[in-house]
Order: sequence, then structure tokens, then C-alpha cells
Amino acid sequence: MKLTVYLAGEIHTSWREDIKKEAESLNLPIMFVGPQENHEVSDNIGEEIYGTQPGSIYKDDAASDLNNLRTAVMMQKSDIVIALFGEKYKQWNTAMDAASAVSLGKPLILIRPEALHHPLKELSNKANVTVETVGQAVRALGYIFE
Amino acid sequence: MKLTVYLAGEIHTSWREDIKKEAESLNLPIMFVGPQENHEVSDNIGEEIYGTQPGSIYKDDAASDLNNLRTAVMMQKSDIVIALFGEKYKQWNTAMDAASAVSLGKPLILIRPEALHHPLKELSNKANVTVETVGQAVRALGYIFE
Amino acid sequence: MKLTVYLAGEIHTSWREDIKKEAESLNLPIMFVGPQENHEVSDNIGEEIYGTQPGSIYKDDAASDLNNLRTAVMMQKSDIVIALFGEKYKQWNTAMDAASAVSLGKPLILIRPEALHHPLKELSNKANVTVETVGQAVRALGYIFE
Amino acid sequence: MKLTVYLAGEIHTSWREDIKKEAESLNLPIMFVGPQENHEVSDNIGEEIYGTQPGSIYKDDAASDLNNLRTAVMMQKSDIVIALFGEKYKQWNTAMDAASAVSLGKPLILIRPEALHHPLKELSNKANVTVETVGQAVRALGYIFE
Amino acid sequence: MKLTVYLAGEIHTSWREDIKKEAESLNLPIMFVGPQENHEVSDNIGEEIYGTQPGSIYKDDAASDLNNLRTAVMMQKSDIVIALFGEKYKQWNTAMDAASAVSLGKPLILIRPEALHHPLKELSNKANVTVETVGQAVRALGYIFE
Amino acid sequence: MKLTVYLAGEIHTSWREDIKKEAESLNLPIMFVGPQENHEVSDNIGEEIYGTQPGSIYKDDAASDLNNLRTAVMMQKSDIVIALFGEKYKQWNTAMDAASAVSLGKPLILIRPEALHHPLKELSNKANVTVETVGQAVRALGYIFE
Amino acid sequence: MKLTVYLAGEIHTSWREDIKKEAESLNLPIMFVGPQENHEVSDNIGEEIYGTQPGSIYKDDAASDLNNLRTAVMMQKSDIVIALFGEKYKQWNTAMDAASAVSLGKPLILIRPEALHHPLKELSNKANVTVETVGQAVRALGYIFE
Amino acid sequence: MKLTVYLAGEIHTSWREDIKKEAESLNLPIMFVGPQENHEVSDNIGEEIYGTQPGSIYKDDAASDLNNLRTAVMMQKSDIVIALFGEKYKQWNTAMDAASAVSLGKPLILIRPEALHHPLKELSNKANVTVETVGQAVRALGYIFE
Repeated sequence: MKLTVYLAGEIHTSWREDIKKEAESLNLPIMFVGPQENHEVSDNIGEEIYGTQPGSIYKDDAASDLNNLRTAVMMQKSDIVIALFGEKYKQWNTAMDAASAVSLGKPLILIRPEALHHPLKELSNKANVTVETVGQAVRALGYIFE
Repeated sequence: MKLTVYLAGEIHTSWREDIKKEAESLNLPIMFVGPQENHEVSDNIGEEIYGTQPGSIYKDDAASDLNNLRTAVMMQKSDIVIALFGEKYKQWNTAMDAASAVSLGKPLILIRPEALHHPLKELSNKANVTVETVGQAVRALGYIFE
Repeated sequence: MKLTVYLAGEIHTSWREDIKKEAESLNLPIMFVGPQENHEVSDNIGEEIYGTQPGSIYKDDAASDLNNLRTAVMMQKSDIVIALFGEKYKQWNTAMDAASAVSLGKPLILIRPEALHHPLKELSNKANVTVETVGQAVRALGYIFE
Repeated sequence: MKLTVYLAGEIHTSWREDIKKEAESLNLPIMFVGPQENHEVSDNIGEEIYGTQPGSIYKDDAASDLNNLRTAVMMQKSDIVIALFGEKYKQWNTAMDAASAVSLGKPLILIRPEALHHPLKELSNKANVTVETVGQAVRALGYIFE
Repeated sequence: MKLTVYLAGEIHTSWREDIKKEAESLNLPIMFVGPQENHEVSDNIGEEIYGTQPGSIYKDDAASDLNNLRTAVMMQKSDIVIALFGEKYKQWNTAMDAASAVSLGKPLILIRPEALHHPLKELSNKANVTVETVGQAVRALGYIFE
Repeated sequence: MKLTVYLAGEIHTSWREDIKKEAESLNLPIMFVGPQENHEVSDNIGEEIYGTQPGSIYKDDAASDLNNLRTAVMMQKSDIVIALFGEKYKQWNTAMDAASAVSLGKPLILIRPEALHHPLKELSNKANVTVETVGQAVRALGYIFE
Repeated sequence: MKLTVYLAGEIHTSWREDIKKEAESLNLPIMFVGPQENHEVSDNIGEEIYGTQPGSIYKDDAASDLNNLRTAVMMQKSDIVIALFGEKYKQWNTAMDAASAVSLGKPLILIRPEALHHPLKELSNKANVTVETVGQAVRALGYIFE
Repeated sequence: MKLTVYLAGEIHTSWREDIKKEAESLNLPIMFVGPQENHEVSDNIGEEIYGTQPGSIYKDDAASDLNNLRTAVMMQKSDIVIALFGEKYKQWNTAMDAASAVSLGKPLILIRPEALHHPLKELSNKANVTVETVGQAVRALGYIFE
């Protein structure tokens, strides 16, 4: 049994690499997918494909067309979604991806610092598993294969 | 044709009252529902029903049981969801409710200040309508009945 | 048993009035709903709510936000969809509404002049009933109540 | 991750070959599928299998049986649908395929000349991505794999 | 709690009247709906609305358009389906309606003479309740309200 | 907003009456439905309708036909399911009704003595709310209307 | 693209072998699956696994448990269903399989002698393709790969 | 055709090994999956990943997070579910898994001693096949491949 896991969440730290390494060291048969991690590319992809837009809202709207296309395709291919919330940033698209996963019947693992639990409590309540570290999330993935 | 509209979003301002008044002044046949707006009640409802919990995470988890029950029931009764994002707060449960609405096939109207568009761009892209003011949202509701 | 019927299709002729009159004369317990029939209002509703847009594509995109919101709400309330294709115009949104109805499991009645059958043959094949006149469509509705 | 993409739209130009070539030059792991592109075969397939029909409407109806069978099978195998609208023709089956894709939860990329945006605005609004050229569409596909 | 029950099956005997009378005598709050019971009307409704067809297959195909439209609307309004098989006739549309009900998640009550059980065994196996008489079926409906 | 609540669980104590009284005293606009509470009737309903069966397994199978019919109809009419587990009995049909509710997207409130939590932990984990007393469950219902 | 096709219908003639041979001669990449074709095995499988039953109804009920299990698994694996009706037999399980396929969104090809069209007209109306011979059905399958 | 079968039920006997051996001896192309069979690991997995919890209810709740994650992933990968009920234990999670399988449209085979049929009668009624021994269940699986 091979699994595909979508890694939703912040793109400013190396947490995706950490997860992949830990999963690899455990020989878990998992393919990880995720969003565009180059922030600039992610913000500019709309204008790159559509051409210059008449203002920042329109630029953002164009970029989100492509980012949502990418996420939609990958999430449908995924068996599990892991969503990580960091200390900074609004991360509303992370919350959106996590809630979409739940609605699509995809199991959800939430990673967040304990300090953020209060504003995430309703989402955590819908997740299958809520942990604080990348290591715990990989341990949860590993339990599926034991 | 009567509609039920769920009002997701911050509970620290009177925006729900504003929407209700404007809709009433237009004689729109709409029933509005929404979350518990008393913040303290919303935070304490878990311990009130379950009894004292052994720490804040557990207290939050208990509260979210009840808040998610309430939202689940009301959202299934709703024809449209309006989600408002304000300048403050994490509002991840608002993002969660908005994304759940989209996944359930419920039309979504997003209200946010233009300054917040960038972090909301992917969610806005999934919404049917994105506006800045309560008045615009009511105008959109009104268009359905024209 | 009361039914709600969504009337998709061109807004430049009075066919919706004709259907309503014929249904009324047969005392069919049907509520008819449909799109905004004032073409100008339909084209301008986006700018009216969002404000002036930076070009016609953006104006169109804004208008379609509202038109799709309206249609989404009404179609979910409908038991049957009637889609009429006239001699003129592209009418791609009519084809879209008709196909959406089929995908949502809503029975579809197609009205089109015989001359348009060839380009509509695949859509006609998915419809429950394909006729040439408004009178035939109302007769089909009437058969449900016989 | 390999993807299957259904190419809906006109069958009188070589746009499908163009897409395949561009995708191949980018080494995108995509299998493209689509409708019968030989117009005559597509129109006559019903009579070829069923025998001669008693008139053009019946011939069309027979042909659409087979064309819809083919599309239904292929669309269910597809991860993404690209729909291209050209300057000519009614293309109502293209609109139907595009709307069906959206209803089935398949991401949709729309290609149309800017001049056709107005009549396509509601469909464009439901698409994930709307572009003018085949090259832009392939660039959007490529973004999924970056 | 009021229920709507669709009565699928043969139209040559008065079993629907029998069910209605028995249910009424028990004061069950049930609305019964069903197909066109006038066999001739059911067979001719296609030509009546579409005009004369070029042969019996085409006449049948036209009639089934209307009969399936009627059934589709009514079955979606129904909470339960009762399907009766008699000694005569092919009754394949009864089997079709019964199987559609199961697939739509509508509870199914099957009425058939014991002698017909063998060819109906797979369908009976999917039904919630299989009985021999109209009286038993009404007794089953009554049990829901006890 | 009126709600319908299905009360799954043991039929040997008066807990359903307790819930109804408490809900009434709070003026909650709720209609309660549930299984046949007369154990003997529930066990014998199959033979009563089908006639004597050739053994206890067959008698049980016949009875469950009718009990599942009743539950299927009522659960589809319900907005919420409450499942109560008592100290005695296997109560596997209660677990079945509770799990079905979750799968159907109906919010679930679980009532069980704390001593039974261990064997119910996976089901409790899927429920929205888990409490020990009927009073707590009604309080949870009340919170929806606050 | 490889397809799996379920062959529903009578088990007393060699039509399945004919289809397989014709498909093979066209090199169609299709795996065919279907019901147990040994009539005696199909009738006795229930008693073989459960032990002797107390009468023919119970024997039939036991057999249908296993036959429906087999069909359920295979149909979910299938991309297309072909249902053949012959001159003899009630064939209600064929009608059931065909209607289930339609409800599950699986394309349906119906094979029946023209003489049987009248009683099959409503089912034919729901099928994608209706033909008279095995050869026509294989030709329709072939069209998907052209 | 290869199948994946989820084996729900008690983890204190070697019935899973027995099924695997019998299936292997028949060369059935089946992959079997199931829950964590080490009872202690299953009970402690929550605390192992989350850290020590403030009481047994919380420890159970944590463990069920992981157990339900594992089951959710595996059940979605499965074509069939087999649920075994033994003489001992509450086995409510087995009933939950079995009911979830039915609701997800996965065929269900129930294994239980005849003595337990009465409390399992409603669940048995929803199962495709109900038997007493592991051997009978494997025989049922084998019938699918005959």
C-alpha cells in the first residue's frame, strides 16, 4: 500500500524537507506533494501566464487561479493531508486546504505550536490528529503502516 | 422563495446586526443564522456541559465540540454562507467555515477589507462573490430576488 | 406536490411569460424562477456592486460573479430545469446551466428550433425531453401532474 | 504523478496537436484524450452502428449516443479538462463538456479569444483558469508539476 | 412526520387504489404518487407532444422521454418506493425504478407473488422489505409510524 | 428553525421520555423520533408481517427488515442523531445507527457512562459531542438555539 | 487507457464469449467481467456456503447474497456496463444491474432484440446506447478507442 | 482483478492469519489490511505520540485519533470489508467499521457465532453476506473470482 500525502501550509521554512527526510529514514512508502514553495513564483504565476494585471487585487486573483488549480489536482490525488500552521502569517489558505480535505473525506493531520491552539480549536476538532511537531506527524503516518 | 443565510466570521463587532437591518429594510425574505456571538459563552460552553477540563487545550477542545455541532446543523440548513474577515484575529475558523461551505456546494460571499486580499486570495478565488462592505453583501443577496 | 422550475436561456424574448401564462391556464402548481432578464442590469451588476472595473473583461468577470451566485441558489431550489435556445446569440451560459442541471440530477427539458438540433445534439441527448415550442414544454410539465 | 487531460472543443483546427507537442517538449507526464476529431465520422457514427435513420434529427440523435458514451468514459478517467472555444461554430457541446467537468469536480482550463469573453463570462467564472492561447494552457499544466 | 411514497409497477390492476384505501383507513399521513396509469396515454404521450414518429421504436422512445421525466421528478420527492410485480408482463421498468430507488438511498418495499421470487431474488435481496400482498406493504408502512 | 432528532439506543429505560421532557421545558423546537420501543413488538414485527419463520435466525432477519426500514426513513428526516449506550446489552445496532449517522453527515451526540468510554473510544472520537447524561445532551441541543 | 466492462444479462447463451472474441480481434484493451455463468452454481452458492436452507425462498435469498456481493465488487471496478436481454426469461436482475449502473454514473450499453423494445423502452431511454447485436455493442466500445 | 479487503474486528485471536492462509491456499489475488493488532500498542499509541494525557478518558481519546486515522486510510483503499464478532468484548468499533463500510458503499461480510445473531440482526441485515466461520468468508471471497 502506497500513499500520497499533500503538505499544506507555510512555505517559508523547510518543514516539508524535514517530513520527507524523516519519512524516508523510516522507509515509509509515501509520495509527498504540495503547493509551489517559491513565494515569488506563487505570487507572480498569474501575471506570468495571463500578462500584467491592472492592480494588485487583479494580480492576486490571477495567481490564485493557478495556485488553486494546482492544489485541486494534487489534493484529489492524495490520501491524507497534513496542514502546518506556524507562528507568523495569516495562513488562511492553509485553513482552507485543511477544511476542504475534511469535506472531501481525506484524513487530516494538523501541526501547530500549542500557543496557536485556541484560534485553531474548531479546525483541530475536525482533524483526525493534532500535533506540535513534524516528528509527531511522521510518527502518525508510520502508525498506518505498522 | 425564502432563503437561510449563515453568517460566519468575527463576533466582536455588530456586523451581523447591520446585515439583518439592511436586509430587513429591503424586505428580503431571508432568515439569518450564525455562531454563538458571546465570546465568553463560546469559549466556556465545553466546560459548562462537560465539567472542568484538565487544562486550556482540553477546555478548547471541549468548547469546539459544541461550536462545531452548532455550525454543522446550521450550515446544513443554509442556502448561502457569508464569511466576514476583519482586521484583527486569526479567524481560522471563519476560513474553515467558508471552505466547508464551498465543498458542500453552498454559494459563498466573502467580505474583507481590501488590505486583507493578498492572504485571502485563494479563498476569494473559490468564493462566488468577494466584497468589502456589509452593504455590498446585502446588495448581492438582493440581486437574487430581483 | 408543488414544483419549482428554473427557466434558463435567452432573455430577449418573452418566452418566460408565455410559459408562466400557459402553466397558469392549466392550474399547474409550479413556481418559476430564472436569471435576471434585464440584459443591462445583468451586464452591469458587477460594477454596480464592486465599483468600476479596469476594462471590459474585468467588468464581465464581476458581473458573472453575481449572475452565477443567483443561478446557483435558484437551481438548487429547483426540481426541473427548462433551457431554451433561440436562433440568435451564443447562449453558452444556457448550455452551461443545462449541463449543470443534468450533472446535479435535475431533469432537463430542452426547447430549440429544429434547425438548431445538429449543434445541440449531444446536449439534447442528455436532456429528458427535447421540444420545439414553449407549449410542448408546458405540456410535458403538465404530464407530471396527470 | 501522471495526469490525464480531456481536450474538449472544436475539431476543425490542429489545436490538440499543438498542445500535445508543447507538453511533450516540456516533458510533462500527461496523457491527452478527447473526442472523435474526424467530423464526418462523428456525425455518421450513429448510422454506422444503428443503421440508416429516418431523418436528420434521428441521425443526429443516434450519433450523439455514441459521442456521449465516448466522452463519458474519457471524462471519468481524466484529472483535468481543457475546453477551447474558437471563433466559429455554436460549440454548445464544448460548453456542455466544460460545465459537466465543473460539476464532476474536475478542474477546468478555458481557452478562448478575448473577443468571445462576454458570452463566455459565466462559464469562465466557473473555470479554474481562463486563457487565450494553447501555450498559456500548457504553461498552466506545467505549473502543476513545478 | 409526513411521507411521500412512489408506487412503481403494473398499471393494469387496481393495487394502487387498494394501498391508498388501506393507508387511509389507518390514518397514515402518506401522500402516494406514481406513474401514468392509463396505459394508452402512457404509450402515446410521446407522439402527443412531439408529433407522429417514424415507427414504433421511435414512438416508444418518445414516450419514454416523458415517462422517465415524470418518474424522475416524483422519485426525488419520495421517501419510500413500493414496487409491485404481478404475474404477467415483462415489468422491466418496474425493476429499473426499484433498482434506482435503492441506488438513490430510498428504502424499497417489494410486493410479488411467492411464485415470482426466484427471478426476483437479487432485487429482493436489495429491498428493505419483500412481501406478497398489498396489505403487508401497508402494514410495513404503518410500522414506521407506530 | 425547527430540528428533528433521532434517538438511537436502548429501549429498556425511559431515557427518551426524559429527553423529551427536558427539551420541552426549555421550549426547544425539536421533534424527536426513534425506533420501536416495545421490545416484543420490535422482535416480532417480522413474523407479524411475513408470517411464521422457520427458526430464530430467520425470525430475527425478518424483524430487522422492518426495523431497518423504519430507521432508514427516520434517519433521513433527522438533522441530528443522539445515541445512548447503557450498562447492559450488546447494543450493536446503536453503534451501527451512530456510525451511519456520521457517514451520512448527520451530527452525532453520544451519551454513555464514563465506565464505557474505553470500548466506545473510536466511536466517541467520530461523534461531535460525548456526554454522560441525558441532561448534558439536551443542554448541547439547547446551545444550537441560543 | 484500459477499460473494464461488466457484462450483465442472461447466462444461457455464449454471448459473452462472442463479445470477448470480437473485442480481441479488434485488439481493444478491455477486461471483461461478469456474473457467475454456471446457472446451477449461481442458484446453489448460498446453500453451499451457508448450509441447507429451510425452503426455496430461503435458498434463493442465500444465493442472492453471494451473487449481489460478486456483482457489487465487479461493478465498482467497471468503467462501462453492457446489459443483454434475450427472448426468454424474466431477467429482472439484468434490469436491476443496468439501472444500478446508470445510477452509479457508469455508461450503459443495452443489447436487445427489436421485438423487446416496447417493455424495455424506459430502460433504453436511460442507456447511452441501445443496439440489437453483440457486434454493434463491440463496435460502440471500439469507437471509444478510435 | 486484484482486491483489497479490510479485516475489522477482535484482535485477541488469530482469525486474520487464518483468513490470509486460506486465501493464499486458494491463490486469491487479495491484499488484506486491518487495524493495529497489538492491543497494548493500540491503547498507548495516543500517549506515545501526544505525550502523557491527564487521565484515562484523555488517553483513550488520544489513542482513538490515531486508530481512526489508520482505519480511515485503509478503508478508503479497500474494496470489501470483513467484520468478525467474537463471543467476548463490546466490539462497538467493529460495529462502527462495519456500518461505515455499508454507508461508503463497500460490500460487507459479517462473521459471527450463531449465538450472537440476535443482537447483530440489524447489522447482519445490512451486510451482503453473514456467516459463522472464517472458512465461509473466504469461500465467499473466492466466489467473486470464479
